[in-house]
Amino acid sequence: MRKVAGIDLGGTMIKMGIVDEKDGIIDKIEFETKLDLGFEGVVKRMVEMLEELITRNAVEISAVGIGSPGSIDHENGVIRFSPNFPGWENVPLKAEFERLSSFQVFVENDANSAVLGEKWFGAGKNKEHIVLLTLGTGIGGGVISHNILIKGHDGIGAELGHTVVEPNGPLCGCGNYGCLEAIASGSAMVRFANEGRRKFPNSKIFQLEKDRGVLGAKEIFDAFRENDPLATRIIERFIDAMSTAIANFIHIFNPQIVILGGGISRGSDVFFDELKKRVEMKVMPSFVSTYELVVSPLLNDAGILGASAVALEALK
Amino acid sequence: MRKVAGIDLGGTMIKMGIVDEKDGIIDKIEFETKLDLGFEGVVKRMVEMLEELITRNAVEISAVGIGSPGSIDHENGVIRFSPNFPGWENVPLKAEFERLSSFQVFVENDANSAVLGEKWFGAGKNKEHIVLLTLGTGIGGGVISHNILIKGHDGIGAELGHTVVEPNGPLCGCGNYGCLEAIASGSAMVRFANEGRRKFPNSKIFQLEKDRGVLGAKEIFDAFRENDPLATRIIERFIDAMSTAIANFIHIFNPQIVILGGGISRGSDVFFDELKKRVEMKVMPSFVSTYELVVSPLLNDAGILGASAVALEALK
Repeated sequence: MRKVAGIDLGGTMIKMGIVDEKDGIIDKIEFETKLDLGFEGVVKRMVEMLEELITRNAVEISAVGIGSPGSIDHENGVIRFSPNFPGWENVPLKAEFERLSSFQVFVENDANSAVLGEKWFGAGKNKEHIVLLTLGTGIGGGVISHNILIKGHDGIGAELGHTVVEPNGPLCGCGNYGCLEAIASGSAMVRFANEGRRKFPNSKIFQLEKDRGVLGAKEIFDAFRENDPLATRIIERFIDAMSTAIANFIHIFNPQIVILGGGISRGSDVFFDELKKRVEMKVMPSFVSTYELVVSPLLNDAGILGASAVALEALK
Repeated sequence: MRKVAGIDLGGTMIKMGIVDEKDGIIDKIEFETKLDLGFEGVVKRMVEMLEELITRNAVEISAVGIGSPGSIDHENGVIRFSPNFPGWENVPLKAEFERLSSFQVFVENDANSAVLGEKWFGAGKNKEHIVLLTLGTGIGGGVISHNILIKGHDGIGAELGHTVVEPNGPLCGCGNYGCLEAIASGSAMVRFANEGRRKFPNSKIFQLEKDRGVLGAKEIFDAFRENDPLATRIIERFIDAMSTAIANFIHIFNPQIVILGGGISRGSDVFFDELKKRVEMKVMPSFVSTYELVVSPLLNDAGILGASAVALEALK
């Protein structure tokens, strides 16, 4: 079976694995990105780490896949720009990695990597119509339709998090109002919590914040479990926005499966049943029961497996 | 050059043409559907009309394409059901037409036909990423992405008119609330006009209705030209809904072109400039100027050319 390396390149951490196309991850490591090394320094370190990983497993790999946040020129393996890598503009990731190593390298946007990862290793196996939403600080989207990764003419499509679900809703980081990301992302939910501080000063959310020294989606989910009114309001709005968006994607792509990935999906026990019910309520009669809605089974390995799938897909 | 027949099958009228893949329509006829003849009777009449049309032009055709409203099983050429043909359920249009004639027949949903028509004969020529909205009594959608017609797993996708643009908006015929079709279709605009009758009894819309004996989108557009307040309210809402939906489709498909077809697009002089401005305002910075937004150039021939394109695409 073919083996490849998958590299999940993040602004803080890099996750790297050797992956067998049948058996999944053989071995993996995780290390700090150290952006202060600069672009060349970071790439050099990635190459060294990969060579070490290959040596210690005594394997041969066919190619390297890299999943990166930001706007990626897949053809040329260039990171055009990314909020996660300040100062990296049009950096030739593929060319630099290939110059320093003997490997063939393929680079893809992390949300596109993620949906390919689902197709090769996750909930999308043997499926040709897959919609993936990665719920984290932001909301990313990846779509496979008719077995093709939908990227659009300039390769910047599938921005599912920036479809509008509340036309007069809150301002989004993109400059528009009421995007899915502006309501259902981790950062949006934390913003809503902070906005509720004056009206709900005794919310369980703020008790948890005090106890744990952090206020994130987890604190909101945990407060929701105890019927906290502010948390309930935030989760209700999350479910409403998500169900509208997912029903829209179902009407557009008629997919076999809709997969929720990313950090927020780990708290899915809190919202999943209600979300499922609400989506089924919002789809047209002819779409009822035509799709599955699931949480990604790939968890912490989603990044490495997605990146590997970029290489496997390219070699196909 | 290859020649085919294109048949635009409607509930009231049938339009039929002989079409050259390079030169477009050579000759065409239009006749009543006469649903009272029953399914077999209607098909028999179509075959006879086609044979007459072929004889009078002394041409040979390679295949017949039929565009039909409703839910179409393209593989088998079956109309599953259609509100336009009461009583036709799972009727084998392709099989029956082929039984009565010597032609190879391909059947497709009318909105999918329309986007193929744009690709072969209209504004989508030489483009691989096309989004089409047909604005009529309802709102249909057709998408070509990466040169593939996006239909989804069960062939029922691209329901762009049933994506939600006003989550708490008016009830749609599909049972959901706030679909694009429930706000921006011809029937929705007429409904809004009627709802405004009590508040705006002297609206120019109702004067035109009295003069012309009809209240349709045309009367609303004409009243809007004279700054009628009710018409302005309806058109404003139309533009708002349309721009939200189009920006969403741009973020999802990153298309080269978005094409507006259907009867309502004929009145586009009234709304087009403002719609264009509003869409450009709603797309993310990276999508600005990445697309064209145009009105279909195919006008009355869109149905025949679309149906022809179904045959040409199948023979490709």
